[in-house]
Amino acid sequence: MNARNCLEVLRKIKDVAFATVDEVGKPQVRIIDVMLVEGERLYFCTSRGKDFYQQLERDGNVAVTALTPEFQMVRLNGRARRLANQKEWIDRIFEENPSMNDVYPGESRYVLEPFVIDCGNVEFFDLGVTPISRESFPVGGGEVSEKGFVISDACIGCGKCLRGCPQQCIEEGTPFRIMQEHCLHCGRCFEECPVQAILRR
Amino acid sequence: MNARNCLEVLRKIKDVAFATVDEVGKPQVRIIDVMLVEGERLYFCTSRGKDFYQQLERDGNVAVTALTPEFQMVRLNGRARRLANQKEWIDRIFEENPSMNDVYPGESRYVLEPFVIDCGNVEFFDLGVTPISRESFPVGGGEVSEKGFVISDACIGCGKCLRGCPQQCIEEGTPFRIMQEHCLHCGRCFEECPVQAILRR
Repeated sequence: MNARNCLEVLRKIKDVAFATVDEVGKPQVRIIDVMLVEGERLYFCTSRGKDFYQQLERDGNVAVTALTPEFQMVRLNGRARRLANQKEWIDRIFEENPSMNDVYPGESRYVLEPFVIDCGNVEFFDLGVTPISRESFPVGGGEVSEKGFVISDACIGCGKCLRGCPQQCIEEGTPFRIMQEHCLHCGRCFEECPVQAILRR
Repeated sequence: MNARNCLEVLRKIKDVAFATVDEVGKPQVRIIDVMLVEGERLYFCTSRGKDFYQQLERDGNVAVTALTPEFQMVRLNGRARRLANQKEWIDRIFEENPSMNDVYPGESRYVLEPFVIDCGNVEFFDLGVTPISRESFPVGGGEVSEKGFVISDACIGCGKCLRGCPQQCIEEGTPFRIMQEHCLHCGRCFEECPVQAILRR
């Protein structure tokens, strides 16, 4: 996998969830079509009358997710920016997604504004394999922030973390090591460690 | 439709998007299983190590959405609260969703905490019919906030809004009237009205 593949998965699913934050700081989420993907750029559109549009124009922060039929979750976090050349982009979007004409016939399409997400990070989280598998990639000039837990040198090698891990994704060593690519981030090891050697990051 | 039916649609889809706001005010979203629905209560769970858990514990504000294969979108906004009797609820959730044992075998299930959304509002938005159709319901003791646009008494009856409406959901009268149950909230009428008689709410 890479960032581009992840965006292509979202395009294939097409109807995906877009989350934003509203004017009072609450989460909002709705299903939006992924209209185009080119390289590490994901394009969508929305109409100027919608709360979603206002929220995008305020700061552009957006989080996107969808699940494949094989239980692979893609999570994209980044910033959406509105594109200049509105008519050109909307025409292209309608050409590649002709069912849009059923909802916005004729000239009414131009109440829509095109947006791109081209900077952020994306995670591919495969729940269809054992152990689960996860991988993160930067999108455009974005950065990946590593999450979850790490075992520090304070580890006494007792093995309690490993015995409790639901995915058995901790390997012995000095210190023991969490296989980050298979970790659920459930925090059980963090809770079980008798010497608080496991750190949340 | 009613609130209960909407929650049952989410349970049937099962893997739905849950959005929250993180500690720096950015949107976060991931796919979560709807574990149970009873009346106007929707139950789910997450593990104590996850960012999602921290975000729920901070203020509980959550927005949930999913799309049916028939292009019906359900959007639930509300507050999630953690349930007491953790083990009892988690055991019940695992009994009704046995595939959870594949991810959290044995005692590891108790790193999960049960949550319920029982107060908020839910929208059913049917994009599979022409014109589109939408309806909102309170959940528990929650309130529905009406969105979109209304035509005020300043309407001069010119019909420009009606001619421009992509869903043809404005009816003539004094003043003209938007059929809210068929409105996209696209804002085209608001932009087209020559006398600014249309108000955003």
